[in-house]
Amino acid sequence: MPREFRLKRRVNFYETDAAGIVHFSMFFRYMEEAEHALWRDSGMSISKAGTDLGWPRVGASFAYFRPLRFEDEFEILIRIEEIAEKRIRYSCTLTRDGEKLAEGAMTIACVLRRPNEPMKSTPIPPDVVARLLGAKDGSRDGSPHA
Amino acid sequence: MPREFRLKRRVNFYETDAAGIVHFSMFFRYMEEAEHALWRDSGMSISKAGTDLGWPRVGASFAYFRPLRFEDEFEILIRIEEIAEKRIRYSCTLTRDGEKLAEGAMTIACVLRRPNEPMKSTPIPPDVVARLLGAKDGSRDGSPHA
Amino acid sequence: MPREFRLKRRVNFYETDAAGIVHFSMFFRYMEEAEHALWRDSGMSISKAGTDLGWPRVGASFAYFRPLRFEDEFEILIRIEEIAEKRIRYSCTLTRDGEKLAEGAMTIACVLRRPNEPMKSTPIPPDVVARLLGAKDGSRDGSPHA
Amino acid sequence: MPREFRLKRRVNFYETDAAGIVHFSMFFRYMEEAEHALWRDSGMSISKAGTDLGWPRVGASFAYFRPLRFEDEFEILIRIEEIAEKRIRYSCTLTRDGEKLAEGAMTIACVLRRPNEPMKSTPIPPDVVARLLGAKDGSRDGSPHA
Repeated sequence: MPREFRLKRRVNFYETDAAGIVHFSMFFRYMEEAEHALWRDSGMSISKAGTDLGWPRVGASFAYFRPLRFEDEFEILIRIEEIAEKRIRYSCTLTRDGEKLAEGAMTIACVLRRPNEPMKSTPIPPDVVARLLGAKDGSRDGSPHA
Repeated sequence: MPREFRLKRRVNFYETDAAGIVHFSMFFRYMEEAEHALWRDSGMSISKAGTDLGWPRVGASFAYFRPLRFEDEFEILIRIEEIAEKRIRYSCTLTRDGEKLAEGAMTIACVLRRPNEPMKSTPIPPDVVARLLGAKDGSRDGSPHA
Repeated sequence: MPREFRLKRRVNFYETDAAGIVHFSMFFRYMEEAEHALWRDSGMSISKAGTDLGWPRVGASFAYFRPLRFEDEFEILIRIEEIAEKRIRYSCTLTRDGEKLAEGAMTIACVLRRPNEPMKSTPIPPDVVARLLGAKDGSRDGSPHA
Repeated sequence: MPREFRLKRRVNFYETDAAGIVHFSMFFRYMEEAEHALWRDSGMSISKAGTDLGWPRVGASFAYFRPLRFEDEFEILIRIEEIAEKRIRYSCTLTRDGEKLAEGAMTIACVLRRPNEPMKSTPIPPDVVARLLGAKDGSRDGSPHA
């Protein structure tokens, strides 16, 4: 059961470029915004003070079908496609009024970050997996077993 | 003979994020910077006033191997991998002191943009192809036929 | 009666820098977001397709008192301080939980933009002034004359 | 004797907006780029790993006279106007082909940043003042006392 989250958004002026459309690099920021909203919806912050866990991106892509313009209202759907031992893979779809604008993907790694050391890959903590996979979804149904 | 261009760059402070490294979306901007430098090196601007040709991105991706930090000096290598009838496909490699940091790819489309009309795909003009494929390279040899 | 608008916002990760706080340049984007929301709230878009009116910024400033961090929730208050013949002057205050974070100001000019001509200052259309000054506020009272 | 630095720059595409000109918030980033180049030219990095000194901005402003467009080449002149006990004040001028585009100002504070503590204002270390005020300039003359 993939866990997903929908974020509604409006295009800001500074996100457009001289071609009159949203710059293609912004779509990656939109995808990340939705990812972080999913984490918050799971009761977590992806960048918590006082932790040495980090979540750098190891891959990201977008295919673009239609442009976005200033003040367009659109929706970002982010979905967890896979949680491996040390990585999480998402898919992402942007739509406006039900029309597909772009499809993206992103993979993040779980790493330990310690001062003056290089980042080092580490297994994702079980409670993070549990929260991401939707203990919270259950609680929405009012399930006593959630 | 693939056409390529190398751009040297230093990381600006505003390109970093709270994880202390360059935000992953910036790599797409770096790739575009190198692309536009390649076009200038071919004697063209990719966004010339007074033309109705546009070059929207239809796909873009990066795989990230090592992080970049504030004031790091690095190199962006952009290479034209294919020029199809209506599309151009690039590959891109970021390196720092010879160490590979990231590998990217980007495909752009040639479109007609007219006021109050949707963008429409169109064949790449032959002179653009000729310039991108390196007529200019020949002129560097002092060739009288360039 | 100054016209004002309050916009609630949360800090996105890509808005932070390697000092762990929101980059100071972002405050100008926040101020602009609130300005454009005020225009929408007045029934207008500041950048409408098919018009040759533009609203470039002629001055902008911020004084910073406290930093913003990832996922902070804050409020942007934008207020029209003066509408002159060809210019509008705003003030702006950012707060978090009632605590003042920063104070800004911005002046924009009304210009005509025509293809291949330099921008030229022009009087603000009366209906724009009327809308900005709050005809809409009246309609909120259910006034039949609004 | 004010210390100053000139940085040459070309406008990147992603720095433009749908009005076809560089977004006004970018000027603050340009000003910061020149500031950091001045620090490097003084033999320092403004954000060095392993130090607990930070340099947050406490004020910034720009007056805009003429727009910048994609691929414009321009110059950023940053000048140290004053070094007080705990603050540095800069002025900044952007020009293109000798024509003044914008004038800015920025004040930064010297602070101590310690984990889990709020930033705290602190006197600027004497060696930083010495470097910024141009000990290095002297050394360029080959002065034995520099």
